[in-house]
Amino acid sequence: MSKCFGVDIGGTTVKLGMFTEDGTLEYQCEIPTRKDNGGSLIIPDICAKITEILTVNSLTKADVMGVGLGVPGAVTEDGIVLKCVNLGWDIFKVADKFKEIFGEVNVKCANDANVAALGEMFKGSGEGKKDMVMITLGTGVGGCVIVNGKILAGVNGAAGEIGHMPMNDDEEDTCGCGKKGCLEQYGSATGVVKVTKRILASAEGESCLKDMEDFSAKDVFDAAKSGDKIANMAVEELGKYLGKAAAQISCVVDPSVFIVGGGVSKAGQFLIDRIVKYYKEYALFASVDTPFTLATLGNDAGIYGAAALILS
Amino acid sequence: MSKCFGVDIGGTTVKLGMFTEDGTLEYQCEIPTRKDNGGSLIIPDICAKITEILTVNSLTKADVMGVGLGVPGAVTEDGIVLKCVNLGWDIFKVADKFKEIFGEVNVKCANDANVAALGEMFKGSGEGKKDMVMITLGTGVGGCVIVNGKILAGVNGAAGEIGHMPMNDDEEDTCGCGKKGCLEQYGSATGVVKVTKRILASAEGESCLKDMEDFSAKDVFDAAKSGDKIANMAVEELGKYLGKAAAQISCVVDPSVFIVGGGVSKAGQFLIDRIVKYYKEYALFASVDTPFTLATLGNDAGIYGAAALILS
Repeated sequence: MSKCFGVDIGGTTVKLGMFTEDGTLEYQCEIPTRKDNGGSLIIPDICAKITEILTVNSLTKADVMGVGLGVPGAVTEDGIVLKCVNLGWDIFKVADKFKEIFGEVNVKCANDANVAALGEMFKGSGEGKKDMVMITLGTGVGGCVIVNGKILAGVNGAAGEIGHMPMNDDEEDTCGCGKKGCLEQYGSATGVVKVTKRILASAEGESCLKDMEDFSAKDVFDAAKSGDKIANMAVEELGKYLGKAAAQISCVVDPSVFIVGGGVSKAGQFLIDRIVKYYKEYALFASVDTPFTLATLGNDAGIYGAAALILS
Repeated sequence: MSKCFGVDIGGTTVKLGMFTEDGTLEYQCEIPTRKDNGGSLIIPDICAKITEILTVNSLTKADVMGVGLGVPGAVTEDGIVLKCVNLGWDIFKVADKFKEIFGEVNVKCANDANVAALGEMFKGSGEGKKDMVMITLGTGVGGCVIVNGKILAGVNGAAGEIGHMPMNDDEEDTCGCGKKGCLEQYGSATGVVKVTKRILASAEGESCLKDMEDFSAKDVFDAAKSGDKIANMAVEELGKYLGKAAAQISCVVDPSVFIVGGGVSKAGQFLIDRIVKYYKEYALFASVDTPFTLATLGNDAGIYGAAALILS
């Protein structure tokens, strides 16, 4: 039975997974991402690691039905990276380079955020869903729109850039994109902290957060879960921004499910409940019951999604 | 050379067009929509008219490659109308009924608003574009999202319902959908009048609209074009709501073009310029240059789009 490799190339480590034809993960490992020499060692390292995995498992290159690669940057379908600052790559024919070193094999490439969403659709909380929106709440707010099983890229590659939906005309701070009032300024980990600090500065009442020199988004959720009033006000505000944005998204693409992932989503069902509360207030009646679920694959979403580039 | 018929079934009239295989409109006419007997005469009337057109042009049913029908309600791809209040239809197998009367022929059905958008993509201002968003500013605000040449319906049929994107938390009036602050409450013909009346009630200064007992959206645009300050404030507000909503839409689907149609769009480039002004303020840099164009087919968009169901 032939194998498929899903490879998630990150700025620090490369994750590799070996899958069966039906998408079962049989083996996984990590290697460091060597960024020396303009990132020229990364693809050779991956090829060497796959060859090693094959040897250990008494397999040959003929057993490999394909290799999917998730890349942290813009990449065309036929495997040309347009620029990848984190890896030191400029315009670079990744798929061609891979085949040159490894030998002839089916290679597919896609952006890492999109690949993670594909992974959730393939074997995670979106399994079996063909039309979904993934909301990734991390350092920033990312998104991925999947229509009929395919990632919607957009004419300028900006489809799914939901972190930059304009949400608040009164914002005075500037977002990383240069505008003011983007969803990312409220829904990201740094956004949660900023919103909480604003509430702390203006609202009455005690809060355990006042005693902390500095605090993280996790601290805010932990405090909220233990009943802290100020922290709960911050989580309400987060839920309102995300619920409203999701309602706007439903009026555009009307997905079958919203999947919430990223570091902030570790707050779990507590966070989901707040988003859903406001989503139901803002959504059109036709799509008011659209479910919200937590991403389930965590850091493995990338290798599953990379494998899905070959297997689905 | 065989012919295709595009039929746009409206609440008052049915528009019919005969097209060549390459989508050239050769002949068009209208018949009244007879809604007696639960709308049971409508399909027989259409079949009779098509037969008459064929006879006049020395053609037979064998020359008909297909018939596309635009229906004012929800309809499945295989031609089952789910309900159509305006025509008196309940659940009704339109395509089957058509074939029963006319004889075996390729029949395709779609919702009329979606068909109009398809028409603009087929032979109107979206010609050659495969990824576009149509914004229809009429009695309400409608929309249609086209991805890779196909209408995006959404899981609940609510994709493209951009008129109900939540835009203003401070609105006190209720929208037809039951929520408050929907785009439709500002961007529709009635919305423009309402916004203008609010500004008239609070803003300083003279306005020709103050002398009118009642006025329409067209009156507001005419006054704005002639330099009326209050009317221009209303058009700015309209542009701001539509430009912001379009920027949000771009963060979700990132289309190649926005096509603006419907009665309010008769205000022309004057309206487009105001929308674009605010779109550029709110849009993410990647999609800041997405063009906005006026729909060009007007009332003929429906027959072109219905033909496109067969021809494209």
